[in-house]
Amino acid sequence: MNVRTRVSIVGATGYSGAELCAILARHPRVELVGVHSSSGGGSSPFASLHPSLAGRSGPAVTPFVLASLLASRPEFVFLATPNEAAAEIAPKLLASGCRVIDLSGAFRLPHAEAYPKWYGFTHPAPELLKEAVYGLSEWADGALAGARLVANPGCYPTSVILPLRPLMPLLAEGHAIVCDSASGVSGAGKKSDLAFSFGELSGNFKAYGVGSHRHEPEMRNALGLNERAPFVFVAHLLPVVRGILSTIHVTFDRPVSAEELTRTYRRAYDGKPFVRLHPAGTLPDLKDVVGTPFADIGFSLLGEGRQAVVVCCIDNLLKGAASQAVQNLNRMIAAGETEGLS
Amino acid sequence: MNVRTRVSIVGATGYSGAELCAILARHPRVELVGVHSSSGGGSSPFASLHPSLAGRSGPAVTPFVLASLLASRPEFVFLATPNEAAAEIAPKLLASGCRVIDLSGAFRLPHAEAYPKWYGFTHPAPELLKEAVYGLSEWADGALAGARLVANPGCYPTSVILPLRPLMPLLAEGHAIVCDSASGVSGAGKKSDLAFSFGELSGNFKAYGVGSHRHEPEMRNALGLNERAPFVFVAHLLPVVRGILSTIHVTFDRPVSAEELTRTYRRAYDGKPFVRLHPAGTLPDLKDVVGTPFADIGFSLLGEGRQAVVVCCIDNLLKGAASQAVQNLNRMIAAGETEGLS
Amino acid sequence: MNVRTRVSIVGATGYSGAELCAILARHPRVELVGVHSSSGGGSSPFASLHPSLAGRSGPAVTPFVLASLLASRPEFVFLATPNEAAAEIAPKLLASGCRVIDLSGAFRLPHAEAYPKWYGFTHPAPELLKEAVYGLSEWADGALAGARLVANPGCYPTSVILPLRPLMPLLAEGHAIVCDSASGVSGAGKKSDLAFSFGELSGNFKAYGVGSHRHEPEMRNALGLNERAPFVFVAHLLPVVRGILSTIHVTFDRPVSAEELTRTYRRAYDGKPFVRLHPAGTLPDLKDVVGTPFADIGFSLLGEGRQAVVVCCIDNLLKGAASQAVQNLNRMIAAGETEGLS
Amino acid sequence: MNVRTRVSIVGATGYSGAELCAILARHPRVELVGVHSSSGGGSSPFASLHPSLAGRSGPAVTPFVLASLLASRPEFVFLATPNEAAAEIAPKLLASGCRVIDLSGAFRLPHAEAYPKWYGFTHPAPELLKEAVYGLSEWADGALAGARLVANPGCYPTSVILPLRPLMPLLAEGHAIVCDSASGVSGAGKKSDLAFSFGELSGNFKAYGVGSHRHEPEMRNALGLNERAPFVFVAHLLPVVRGILSTIHVTFDRPVSAEELTRTYRRAYDGKPFVRLHPAGTLPDLKDVVGTPFADIGFSLLGEGRQAVVVCCIDNLLKGAASQAVQNLNRMIAAGETEGLS
Repeated sequence: MNVRTRVSIVGATGYSGAELCAILARHPRVELVGVHSSSGGGSSPFASLHPSLAGRSGPAVTPFVLASLLASRPEFVFLATPNEAAAEIAPKLLASGCRVIDLSGAFRLPHAEAYPKWYGFTHPAPELLKEAVYGLSEWADGALAGARLVANPGCYPTSVILPLRPLMPLLAEGHAIVCDSASGVSGAGKKSDLAFSFGELSGNFKAYGVGSHRHEPEMRNALGLNERAPFVFVAHLLPVVRGILSTIHVTFDRPVSAEELTRTYRRAYDGKPFVRLHPAGTLPDLKDVVGTPFADIGFSLLGEGRQAVVVCCIDNLLKGAASQAVQNLNRMIAAGETEGLS
Repeated sequence: MNVRTRVSIVGATGYSGAELCAILARHPRVELVGVHSSSGGGSSPFASLHPSLAGRSGPAVTPFVLASLLASRPEFVFLATPNEAAAEIAPKLLASGCRVIDLSGAFRLPHAEAYPKWYGFTHPAPELLKEAVYGLSEWADGALAGARLVANPGCYPTSVILPLRPLMPLLAEGHAIVCDSASGVSGAGKKSDLAFSFGELSGNFKAYGVGSHRHEPEMRNALGLNERAPFVFVAHLLPVVRGILSTIHVTFDRPVSAEELTRTYRRAYDGKPFVRLHPAGTLPDLKDVVGTPFADIGFSLLGEGRQAVVVCCIDNLLKGAASQAVQNLNRMIAAGETEGLS
Repeated sequence: MNVRTRVSIVGATGYSGAELCAILARHPRVELVGVHSSSGGGSSPFASLHPSLAGRSGPAVTPFVLASLLASRPEFVFLATPNEAAAEIAPKLLASGCRVIDLSGAFRLPHAEAYPKWYGFTHPAPELLKEAVYGLSEWADGALAGARLVANPGCYPTSVILPLRPLMPLLAEGHAIVCDSASGVSGAGKKSDLAFSFGELSGNFKAYGVGSHRHEPEMRNALGLNERAPFVFVAHLLPVVRGILSTIHVTFDRPVSAEELTRTYRRAYDGKPFVRLHPAGTLPDLKDVVGTPFADIGFSLLGEGRQAVVVCCIDNLLKGAASQAVQNLNRMIAAGETEGLS
Repeated sequence: MNVRTRVSIVGATGYSGAELCAILARHPRVELVGVHSSSGGGSSPFASLHPSLAGRSGPAVTPFVLASLLASRPEFVFLATPNEAAAEIAPKLLASGCRVIDLSGAFRLPHAEAYPKWYGFTHPAPELLKEAVYGLSEWADGALAGARLVANPGCYPTSVILPLRPLMPLLAEGHAIVCDSASGVSGAGKKSDLAFSFGELSGNFKAYGVGSHRHEPEMRNALGLNERAPFVFVAHLLPVVRGILSTIHVTFDRPVSAEELTRTYRRAYDGKPFVRLHPAGTLPDLKDVVGTPFADIGFSLLGEGRQAVVVCCIDNLLKGAASQAVQNLNRMIAAGETEGLS
């Protein structure tokens, strides 16, 4: 009854991997049997991964070696590695009978042809791209139960798709959907990079990746937009550590009321514990969600109901990575969606 | 020949007023004859207004009293007071023969009817609204020379109108213009307000004022858009002290090339020393302009030239307030545009 | 066996009070029966107090009224109010049979004569000052079990007394003990105060309260130093939200080895779950403890063992306030020291 | 009469080097004839070095090559390179007849034996260590006029020696002098280093370098303290970009009055334009000096005049590096001390 699922992590020392360890260490249905770094280096104590793990015991963090990982017999493996590493490792884990939840971008796009352009490498396992389930938890429910391979969504896409997807049937064709998203610096991972130094970022703000961000095809795919549809995504770098706030602009094909929009969101997210809808006309702040597994959504109507501004906030390391991965795990092991997350 | 213009300031202790004093104290064509606070209180030394004034002598900062201000016989008076105070004071100064550069919003909108809705007061001098010259320096040149009353633009409007105005003839009708602007906290002035405390703002980011920001009618007016035109402005509060970055989205009525857009901007701003155009496809950062009197503009084309993302950065206290006011003064006294500003 | 203790909070809407609610809401031995603000205002939902309470139910937050508080029959009341309010409320609660844990400074000093000078008010219940137990958990153990009134220590004192107290027998008389402590801004509480605005604090750092900080007599008292002993405490304000780091300098009366110092600290804190000793020669960072109930201590020896630099870090809102209050509660109800805190 | 001195810079692309260029570009007595990076790379425009240089012309920034530098015939060369590079370059420049102002630590310590321990290299030009003038401007006046080689002081030492040196005759022997100094991150230079990333530093504060900071022997030397004298210097890393605040604790050998201390400082610094003394009992903030060439000093007396807390603030890149280097240049070319600096 209370049997715990055996779980391993590869890529535990990055920001997302460490959050994942912090969650899984407290998960009542999970036994952490292996914790691995993907960057080599020596062994380090489990408790050193995250301040909240102080005093907790767990497997030592060791460099990833396939054979040793398999020796601890995990049923599930989370990959929080760079994209190309995940694309290499996942097929081997699946071949050994593990189920895989991949937090990288290695299996998010459906077509192998897209990988050289957006990710800079030729995909080593194109046959798995069709099988991989895109794990935006609130929309993937059915497919997760039996999935062997889950592609956990990107942080920006989570903050854009959740608020946009319910609105898609209402939008006027030919009018651009505009997404200005701003992320804290942890979204870029742990970086020894002058551009991410305190001296350069403090007091700064900038837009980047216009038309070239690899999260854009992921969003288009999940929203059913082809590459010519007028969809504009601009990433911005905030001088904060955690959190994403996306400001999204849409044009409806007819005037829409606040009540109708509220109903539309309710239909999509009632019963989804990690999506919180603000009252019409009010917008969430970044701070409302930092440190939490929630996506907060609010909207304001303009132009007599022809236009809306929708704001969605998430913690990029949680709902944008680690906690969403655990939501997916919960679905895959038929646990309650909030187990280990509240 | 080298006669200095006699200048006074009311509202010198706020963030913009202090920057203005710092500039004017070094201006080779200006003699500061009066420096006044609008909030009452006692007298304080001139050098206490701004770190860069250390060691400089200048008039003591005294509470504003009309008669004493006039006694020092200024030819020009800068108002950096709250909106309603400026609306009350300006007519009296004009009546006494002073020329006025108002950094508040008191004379920015052309119709008195707009004031109760957007500014919360009934305008006491509606007849002056027509006379006031809207002082977006790069576009107001001709009118400034003889102006008695200049309405210095708002900080957000400066960052939105400068990049948008040259593009207006190219835009597709019926498609929304979208402006997501993010400002540092000094834009709100010196505030004893929990919402602006370090504890609340550090690590936060939020959108505000959707459809209700008083800078929106100012932008529509300067861009020739009526109130039903699809124009969306969303202000955001950044956890930085200074600077505004506006990310602006437009749809053209036909495909446009980078060369054409560059030419369009060149036509508008060649010879304008405080507008800097980035090479096509590159965008400015906030840090490029903080502490400077420049507006930096960059753009990226999308959708095969049907769409553009334009980014404009300014220092909200300088090009968005104090340095633009001095650009305007320079025009009004027939000094070189950059005098006192480089 | 598993009977929960009935607990109320007064002052729940401040930073410390909100942290306290977040902890107590998850405490397995506690039932929160009343949650009150001390500042008046209306009623607000329990979950609005703290991001981590999202989705949790609990008593609505209502303005403090003695009779209503008593009507919910709490056995324990936490006071997280301003000092003078706590001094007024505590006697009434005690008279009604409640036990009180006071997070303010109202009962920290042993002599009523000290209150006008250090706290600015005449103490209304001097007879309780002798009875109050000073709740620095690691040193108060015995006295807590039967205490009716606990004075929870100040944040700076916690960070200074914990590292200093074990060293006191080793110190050279006549040589100054020097404590330079730096605190995040939440230590000052929620402030609508220009001096605590983001614009004023960002990028700043300053020393304050030299010789006049009310935490100094508290430290002297707990360390057994009279007011003429050479003890120097300087508070500094850091541009961070949470955390205190105290850098402490001592002179020994003979050369001391790292081993001896380590042994001294071990004797004091082995078995104390919330004090963590760093290896000799290494010092903790603020980030090691932010968001945790720990006090981290590290030291470096200098001058051939005649001098030491000791650094202690805590989260000012947790070990410096809320989590230490819960440590004390645990002792008072004979629960495990870490219950509700890990 | 108005002949400009020909000056070159090596190491112009670091934080201090860029500030130096920004100052020298406006200096009325200087002609910048060469601007070189010490880290290789290609050529870049002069104006790209610093935001305040926008629109200014100046020599292109080229990689340092001795022959090309000499070809532009500088009379003075500023070195803002890493320590070891400066130790290698300076002798060659001197041999070619240039005068050198070195902002690195290569010539700050008087004895070559100290270099392997504190700087990690064997000094290549020990004979120059005696000749080098230690350029703490306020104390080096006489020696600067004829100096060929000036060792510009470190940032921490400037903030410690200026407030301490006038007090030395008053101090009680055998009692420790304690200096807790906190610096913004630009003090560490431009770093591609995880430890200096925004993600790691934001919200953090830490002590480092206890007993092992290379600025400590520099301070002891300038204060006339041998290595066994009880002098404790602890560096701390602040989450701000610029500025150092040093909190210094001293014990006098007899009670001292505020008037006497004020007189002592006045005697030392009256007529020194870049040292500002606060009124007795008041302390400067970091923000008072950031962006300025000033050192601000304030003190509070304690223990009936037996102890003092002295606080000194500087901008680490200006008075702690670039502006002090220009103060020294001014002395060396017999210009006014404030020329180019106000």
